Amino acid sequence: MEYTKITSDLLELIKAAVGAESVFTDQDSLNTYCHDETEDLKYYPEVVVKPKDTASVAALLKLCNEKHVPVTPRGGGTGLSGGALPVFGGVLLSMEKFKQIIDIDTENLQAVVEPGVITEEFMNAVAEKGLLYPIDPSSKGSCFIGGNVAHGSGGPRVVKYGTIREYILNLEVVLPTGEVIWTGANTLKYASGYNLTQLMIGSEGTLGVVTKIVTKLIPRSEHSVLMMASFSENEQACGAVSAIFRAGVIPSALEFMERRGVEWVIEYDDIKFDLKDGVNAFLLIEFDGDDMDSIFKDCEKVNVVLEEFGCTDVLFADTAAQKNELWRIRRTMPESVKSNSIYKEEDTVVPRAALPQLIKGIKEIGSRYGFESVCYGHAGDGNLHVNIIKAGMSDEDWKNKLKDGIVEVFELTSALGGTISGEHGIGLVQKDFMPIKYSEINLNLMRSIKKVFDPAGILNPGKIF
Amino acid sequence: MEYTKITSDLLELIKAAVGAESVFTDQDSLNTYCHDETEDLKYYPEVVVKPKDTASVAALLKLCNEKHVPVTPRGGGTGLSGGALPVFGGVLLSMEKFKQIIDIDTENLQAVVEPGVITEEFMNAVAEKGLLYPIDPSSKGSCFIGGNVAHGSGGPRVVKYGTIREYILNLEVVLPTGEVIWTGANTLKYASGYNLTQLMIGSEGTLGVVTKIVTKLIPRSEHSVLMMASFSENEQACGAVSAIFRAGVIPSALEFMERRGVEWVIEYDDIKFDLKDGVNAFLLIEFDGDDMDSIFKDCEKVNVVLEEFGCTDVLFADTAAQKNELWRIRRTMPESVKSNSIYKEEDTVVPRAALPQLIKGIKEIGSRYGFESVCYGHAGDGNLHVNIIKAGMSDEDWKNKLKDGIVEVFELTSALGGTISGEHGIGLVQKDFMPIKYSEINLNLMRSIKKVFDPAGILNPGKIF
Repeated sequence: MEYTKITSDLLELIKAAVGAESVFTDQDSLNTYCHDETEDLKYYPEVVVKPKDTASVAALLKLCNEKHVPVTPRGGGTGLSGGALPVFGGVLLSMEKFKQIIDIDTENLQAVVEPGVITEEFMNAVAEKGLLYPIDPSSKGSCFIGGNVAHGSGGPRVVKYGTIREYILNLEVVLPTGEVIWTGANTLKYASGYNLTQLMIGSEGTLGVVTKIVTKLIPRSEHSVLMMASFSENEQACGAVSAIFRAGVIPSALEFMERRGVEWVIEYDDIKFDLKDGVNAFLLIEFDGDDMDSIFKDCEKVNVVLEEFGCTDVLFADTAAQKNELWRIRRTMPESVKSNSIYKEEDTVVPRAALPQLIKGIKEIGSRYGFESVCYGHAGDGNLHVNIIKAGMSDEDWKNKLKDGIVEVFELTSALGGTISGEHGIGLVQKDFMPIKYSEINLNLMRSIKKVFDPAGILNPGKIF
Repeated sequence: MEYTKITSDLLELIKAAVGAESVFTDQDSLNTYCHDETEDLKYYPEVVVKPKDTASVAALLKLCNEKHVPVTPRGGGTGLSGGALPVFGGVLLSMEKFKQIIDIDTENLQAVVEPGVITEEFMNAVAEKGLLYPIDPSSKGSCFIGGNVAHGSGGPRVVKYGTIREYILNLEVVLPTGEVIWTGANTLKYASGYNLTQLMIGSEGTLGVVTKIVTKLIPRSEHSVLMMASFSENEQACGAVSAIFRAGVIPSALEFMERRGVEWVIEYDDIKFDLKDGVNAFLLIEFDGDDMDSIFKDCEKVNVVLEEFGCTDVLFADTAAQKNELWRIRRTMPESVKSNSIYKEEDTVVPRAALPQLIKGIKEIGSRYGFESVCYGHAGDGNLHVNIIKAGMSDEDWKNKLKDGIVEVFELTSALGGTISGEHGIGLVQKDFMPIKYSEINLNLMRSIKKVFDPAGILNPGKIF
C-alpha cells in the first residue's frame, strides 16, 4: 500500500493540529518508538506524536485520513506480537500523556480512566478504595490499560475473574476519520444494538483510538492462599489442570511452569527457590475469598486431585512475602527466558483438558525441527505461552525452517479446538498464521469491518490480516 | 425497502432447497408465527420454513439472498422487542428443529448445543452432569438458547455469573449469503483478530443465523440461600442494592419487585404469600456457594445493609420448596402483569447506584403523562423492567401521548449513564428510541457492519436501526 510521506509542510500541519510541543522527530524519539517487545524487530516512524487530549487525537486522525498518512497507536510498548510497530512509517501515536484516572466511583463500582495509565497504578489506586480490578498481565508494571483493551488482555486471574472483556463497559473512541464516539453505556448489561465496545476490545488499534475507558470494579477478597505443586512430568501437571475444575473448584489463578523456566529465573534474578532433582513441572495455584475456612476446603479438594496426578510436593505460601516470592518466579519468567536465548514466543490456547496433548505435541514437533522450548502460562484457561529457543538450531534453520515448525504447532493447537493467540494478539508477527485457523470468509469479514471504520486504511495498517 | 414476493415458483425453489416437508404455508402456521410475545403485534410471513440442518439453512439463505426475499429467524418466540416479527413478510425461519444437545464435555467443561434447544432443558442436562450453565431468563421454560445468543440474554444470575456473553465460546453461523463459518475457537480466551463471536451475540439475528453454539460450563454450587427483604419505599430497596456490593458481597441474584407486581402475581397464580400492610417494595437476594458458613457470613453482612436502608422484614428460604415459591413470585411477574392490563414493557438499565433516581423519575414522568407502572427486575445489574400500565389513560393518549413519556424515561436512563435495553434487545419496538442514546455516527457504523454481513439486506430487515 502506498502512503504519503511526511514532508516538512505536512509536519507543520501536524504541529498545527496537535500543538508543536507534542510532535517529535529527533533521532532519540524515533529510536525509542521503533520497537516494542516483539523479538528484535525495528520499524522507524517518521514522526512521533504525543497528544494530550481527545480533541488533538481527533485533529491528528482527521488530518492523516485526508492526507493518507499511516498512524500507529502505541500504549506502553510491551506488546509481543508487533502491534505497535509502525511498519509503514508515518505517525507513531503514543498515548503516554493520557495518564489520568478520572474517576473511581465507589458507589457504582466503576472507574473512568485514560488509556495511558499504567495497569498496576490503576490497580493500586482501585485497591486503595478497597476494590479490585483483576486484569494484571505480567507486564502490569509498564503496560498501559489502553494497550490491554487493544489486546483483550488476560493475565493470571482470568481463570476466576474473566478477561478484560468482562470489565470494560464503555469506551470513548476516536475513529480513523476523526469522529469521536462512545461505544456503549456505563452499564453491566447491554442489549442495544451491535456491541461496538466488544468489537473494539482486541482490535489492536486498527479500528479506532481509545481515549477514555469505563471499567467495572469488584469487591476485593480479604484472603488468599498460594500453592506451588511439583510434578516429575509436564503431562502430569497439565493433566491435573482440568481435573481441578472437575472437582468443583475455581482457583483465582492456575499457572503452569516448566523446570527450565524456573532454572532460568533463578539464574536471572536473585530468587531463592529450592529446585529439587526429578521435578520437571510446576503448577502455581492461588485461591482467594473472604473466608479462610472456605479457601482451605478448596485447597483440600485440590490436594486430592494433585495427588492423583502424581504431585511430588506442595509448597504453601500464606504470608505476603512468601506469595510475592512465588509469584515473582512466574512474573519474571518472560524476561528471564528472553535474556537467556534468541527466542520466539507463541501464545497457544486450547480447551484446558487438551493441555497434555498440546505440550507433548510441541515437544515432539520441536524434536523433529531441532528447536527446544520453554513453556509456561495460564494453564487454567488452557493458555500456554510457548517460548521457542534457538539453542542448537543453525542460523539458517532458525531463519528458514522454524516457520514450518510453528505452523505445525498452530495446526496442532487448531486441531485441538484452540486458536493461535489467547492474549498476545496477532499484530504483525502472527498474521501469516491466521489462515491456519480462520477461513478466507472470516478474514474477509474482518477486512470489511476494518473498511467500515477506516475506509482509507490509515490506522495501524499491516496488522492482523 | 422492496422485497420479492413469494410466488408459487419461488415456493418450489424453497422446497427444493430445504425439503418440502420443512415448508409450511397453511393458515395455522402463518397465524402461529405472525407474533412473538411483544405486546399484541402481528406481522404475517408468506411462508414458514423449519429446516433440519445447517446445509438447509445455507441453501435457504443463498436462495433468498439471490431472489431478494426477506428472512426472519425465530427461536422460541418469547422475544419482547419484536425481533422475530417478519415485518416485510417473506420467509419465517423457525429454528425449532435444531433441538440436539450435541455434546456435554465434562473434561473441558464445555458443551456444543443446537440453537433450538430450550434453555431450561439445556440447563437440566448440564445439571445432571453436576455442572452449571447459569443463563436463565424468566422465559427459560420456553425460550431457545439460540434466541438467548441473539439477544445477549441475562436473567437473574448475571449479577454473579455474567451474561451469556461470558459463556459463548464459539458459534457456527450461516451468513445471509449462504456461507458457513465458525466465528472463533473453543477456548476461554481469544485474541486472534476481531471477535466475531462477540459481534454475533446480541445482533438479534440480523448478521447471520446461528446453527451451533459452544458454551462454557462451570462447577455447580452445592448450597444456596434465598432472602426476601421488605421495604416501605421503592427508593429504600433500590438504595440498598448498590450498598450490598459496597459491603463486599456479590449475591448470585438480586432482584427488585414493586408491591403491585406481587399483588398481581398473588391474584394471577395460586401463590401463598403474606403481603403485609405498609410494605411497598421487595428485594429477592440469593447467595450460592459450596460452604454454608461462608454463605451465612455474607447473609449477615447483607442484613446490616438492609437494616441501614430501613428494611422492615426479612424472610429466609433454605428448603428447595420455599426457594421455589419465592422465585415463582418473581418469575410469574411478567405474565401476571401482562394478563392484568394493556401494557408496554421497557427494559431500562443504569449504573446500579442510580436505581433510586431512575425509579423515582419513572413515577414522576408517569404522573405527568397519566400512566402507572409496575417495575421489577435485575436490580443487582441496574436493570429495571418498567411495565407501563394503561390504567386510566385514554385510548387516544395511550396511542399518541405515551411515546413522549417513554422518550422521557429513556432520556432519564441515558442521562444516568444507562441505555435503553439491558437484555430484551431493540428489535422492532425500541428502534425509534436508539437516537436518544446513540449518535448517528454509532448508528451508521452499525448499518455499515450490517452491510458487510448482509449486502442485500435480506436477514431480519427492519430491526435495530
